[in-house]
Amino acid sequence: MKTLLIIGIGAGDPDYLTVQAINALNRTDVFFLMDKGSAKDSLIGLRKTICERFINGRDYRFASAECPERVRDVPDYHGSVVDLNQDKQQVFEGMIREQMSDGETGAFLVWGDPALYDSTLRIVEQIVANSSEQIEYEVIPGITSLQALAAKHKVCFNSIGQAFQITPARRLAEGGFPEGVDSVLVMLDAQDTYQRFVGQPMHIYWGAYIGTPDEVLIAGPLSEVADTIRTCRAELREQHGWIMDSYLLRKV
Amino acid sequence: MKTLLIIGIGAGDPDYLTVQAINALNRTDVFFLMDKGSAKDSLIGLRKTICERFINGRDYRFASAECPERVRDVPDYHGSVVDLNQDKQQVFEGMIREQMSDGETGAFLVWGDPALYDSTLRIVEQIVANSSEQIEYEVIPGITSLQALAAKHKVCFNSIGQAFQITPARRLAEGGFPEGVDSVLVMLDAQDTYQRFVGQPMHIYWGAYIGTPDEVLIAGPLSEVADTIRTCRAELREQHGWIMDSYLLRKV
Repeated sequence: MKTLLIIGIGAGDPDYLTVQAINALNRTDVFFLMDKGSAKDSLIGLRKTICERFINGRDYRFASAECPERVRDVPDYHGSVVDLNQDKQQVFEGMIREQMSDGETGAFLVWGDPALYDSTLRIVEQIVANSSEQIEYEVIPGITSLQALAAKHKVCFNSIGQAFQITPARRLAEGGFPEGVDSVLVMLDAQDTYQRFVGQPMHIYWGAYIGTPDEVLIAGPLSEVADTIRTCRAELREQHGWIMDSYLLRKV
Repeated sequence: MKTLLIIGIGAGDPDYLTVQAINALNRTDVFFLMDKGSAKDSLIGLRKTICERFINGRDYRFASAECPERVRDVPDYHGSVVDLNQDKQQVFEGMIREQMSDGETGAFLVWGDPALYDSTLRIVEQIVANSSEQIEYEVIPGITSLQALAAKHKVCFNSIGQAFQITPARRLAEGGFPEGVDSVLVMLDAQDTYQRFVGQPMHIYWGAYIGTPDEVLIAGPLSEVADTIRTCRAELREQHGWIMDSYLLRKV
């Protein structure tokens, strides 16, 4: 039998790892990495740093493959993700078949929590369901960038007794501010979607590269800080070659 | 100056503590505890176990007070929470003034994450704003019971590209299944609110006492498992004297 661990490694700062995640690292023989190209190479490096820091006196190895690319700028976002996941599944299946022996434990290191806007869990579920080998798998939760964002801004996700929504920016852009909630946590925003709500009485708590040494935080009344955030985002993306940010929008 | 730490200690299992939380425990001189009465005394005990396990060669002490009670079964839920928080604030202010010296660090241990349906952060913010002493405070995120629930069920919070909502059961009961999302995470359900959706095509992932040795998990098509969950909840509440459960409802 082979064992797969899907380990949430938190939001950038290695101090976000849980004891459970550290124990899981120490059970792992082979770590599967996907190379996403040079701009995000620092993320691969950070995964290796985490292994070096937390694994004690145990041999482990890395198996890496080039990450398939999602076809971008197509109208069918869902379909493009499904296609991407099928491509990733094939790559992972090959690595599990060829680079793991029976009885070994392999691990996927997922930024944040595997349950939140990450497809590794869905892919592994498919691999396990379709494999001729016997494979068990476990999921280990991790601190998401949204939790790190809230902690750094010292703010709660919800108002007292209220519901809130977590959404990709795409849905917020299409549907507007959702009914029935006063707070929305937004991820994966390539289009400065918060700008649509300037002029409405809202507060924004924004952060980029949360938990890393490059972290930037801005908060305030949306109409006062929206332009500062837009300028800052553009500069950071230019400087780093990529940006990972998120924010909480709250009606006030 | 006094320093206050609001430390998320995760969802019951001490292995959910992060390295950051463990470091915070080891900076703390005095831990503030609120006694909620005998039925939940095991939670106080678990906090002390966490301190014993993770604090190394450092003196620390506990300061405890009786927890004020929220007035229940009143129509104004929000008002009753505001009143409760004001009572708690007075209790905490007294403990910070009388049981902490200048230069010391005090900590509140919060189950799950301080940003999610917990008022400690709001209360501390008020204390710091109104205190004549200089007080700094930090927030340390923790693994929520919702994350532990998803990990144990090996399920994602969101469908691909979709938004989801996190809500107290009260709001779900009042407003029905929210528009624009296919998944809802429900907390604080005293009334078996999921029963309202029996007959609709939904899947439920339910869990009680997540992360503790008493953990119980049930998942399946809502119409098939709803009665099992109701019976199980009633039995568990009878057996333990209290219940803490949560669930993910997803349209299929």
